[in-house]
Amino acid sequence: MELISENRAFGGRHCRYTHASAVNNCDMTFAVFLPPFASKDNPVPVLYWLSGLTCTDENFMQKAGAMKMAAELGMAIVAPDTSPRGDDVADSQGEYDLGKGAGFYVNATESPWKQHYQMYSYITEELPELVEANLPVTRERAISGHSMGGHGALVIGLRNPQQYVSVSAFSPISHPLDCPWGHKALGAYLGDNRTAWEEYDASLLLAQRQHYIPLLVEQGRADQFLTEQLKPESLINAAQKSETQLTLNMHEGYDHSYFFIASFIDEHLQFHAGHLGLM
Amino acid sequence: MELISENRAFGGRHCRYTHASAVNNCDMTFAVFLPPFASKDNPVPVLYWLSGLTCTDENFMQKAGAMKMAAELGMAIVAPDTSPRGDDVADSQGEYDLGKGAGFYVNATESPWKQHYQMYSYITEELPELVEANLPVTRERAISGHSMGGHGALVIGLRNPQQYVSVSAFSPISHPLDCPWGHKALGAYLGDNRTAWEEYDASLLLAQRQHYIPLLVEQGRADQFLTEQLKPESLINAAQKSETQLTLNMHEGYDHSYFFIASFIDEHLQFHAGHLGLM
Repeated sequence: MELISENRAFGGRHCRYTHASAVNNCDMTFAVFLPPFASKDNPVPVLYWLSGLTCTDENFMQKAGAMKMAAELGMAIVAPDTSPRGDDVADSQGEYDLGKGAGFYVNATESPWKQHYQMYSYITEELPELVEANLPVTRERAISGHSMGGHGALVIGLRNPQQYVSVSAFSPISHPLDCPWGHKALGAYLGDNRTAWEEYDASLLLAQRQHYIPLLVEQGRADQFLTEQLKPESLINAAQKSETQLTLNMHEGYDHSYFFIASFIDEHLQFHAGHLGLM
Repeated sequence: MELISENRAFGGRHCRYTHASAVNNCDMTFAVFLPPFASKDNPVPVLYWLSGLTCTDENFMQKAGAMKMAAELGMAIVAPDTSPRGDDVADSQGEYDLGKGAGFYVNATESPWKQHYQMYSYITEELPELVEANLPVTRERAISGHSMGGHGALVIGLRNPQQYVSVSAFSPISHPLDCPWGHKALGAYLGDNRTAWEEYDASLLLAQRQHYIPLLVEQGRADQFLTEQLKPESLINAAQKSETQLTLNMHEGYDHSYFFIASFIDEHLQFHAGHLGLM
């Protein structure tokens, strides 16, 4: 794990690291915000933030305005990249919604993707183990994300409730089996077998059985992807079916941008802080 | 004045506009944050934010994390571009510190710059007149900025105390007559006559006479440009000479980045709000 850069911020530190990823079979970059006073003797819990299509580890840290509240709460934030990277990593022909920047947080089983696109294992296993071995953090984890990363956070949280105390999402791709982004990515990474896709569909996972992990979703009504790609109503229907408690806030006038995330990120940090024992 | 885009943010609005600039002789773009409830019947005062080298109207709005506090205080923020733009605007040969993105907030008198580079008049006259005629704002103005924009804010505030209630700066180029960035830009835009340069040097303006406009400066001690380009000690010496009150806060470990600005922007917004009658 090699330090790329470090900036002092809000009394804490924003650091970017690169490391050799065994599961993705390439070098990966991630960013971390460590709040003031985080140390080996005073380790802090971690919120993992999964970004959306085209993003890297940098977008959230630069645009979300999350550090002030994280510093106050005493919470670390880890923001991984959104796909494997490098010259030998398979990519689409310049399509923003497949390949690099569009890993969809799945373990690919199809060629040419399967050699590197193992983002599900990376986020759930390799990255937290690395972070917990090398940074002043506890093993307490929460997870959140935006759009493709909201999909990732919901899927990962619902499938691993023993590993995360709480899950939240902004503008998530709620039902990838029923939207163009999901069809394209899951079809490429997982092939034609739809049973394999179902393991990566938050609405299907939510409908399967009653879940007890705290769930919070934020969605803007003026989001340009709302009806075709995001479909938050599928989450509501699924939660009703399984009698799972879900808080989904719809916001008049807000779009898909980081201005929306920034407007409500503090509430999500406080939500996670409550479950991480920080409040 | 034509609306390019609009995002709801923190209960208010982030808008980008383009307009034909008479003084710069080209189309200019600026961004504005309007807090909740700003309207013709409830106009709000404006903080003008001047960005640094290579920036556009977008950097501050996306990275400073200023909107939450501005929304709470009921303050608009206007972020102009940092130079004239367009295919027929003179530029350097790819140098980041001269030409487009590097207007230095001066009125150029030398060819080929003088045809478009009239940023001092643009910021002090044309832009506020346009903003005040078209947006729900009062004529109360404050001004701040970063690096080259910190230089611009200090120079403009010190020269026009009747137009701005307060001035602040992050990591300003404090004494352009005594640093490489200043020599290069002022030499190109204003020619060899150093008397012309003096009108754009915050330290010289500050030393000339006692000033009564409230002044606040923030500076990181780990700023990579501190000793060669920024030289905040020249502001302190000048303020002592003229018996002008200046608050200059030095921060251990902070660098030149937006992470530094974000860490202390709320204090600057509160400083200006106090003088704008909002607190």
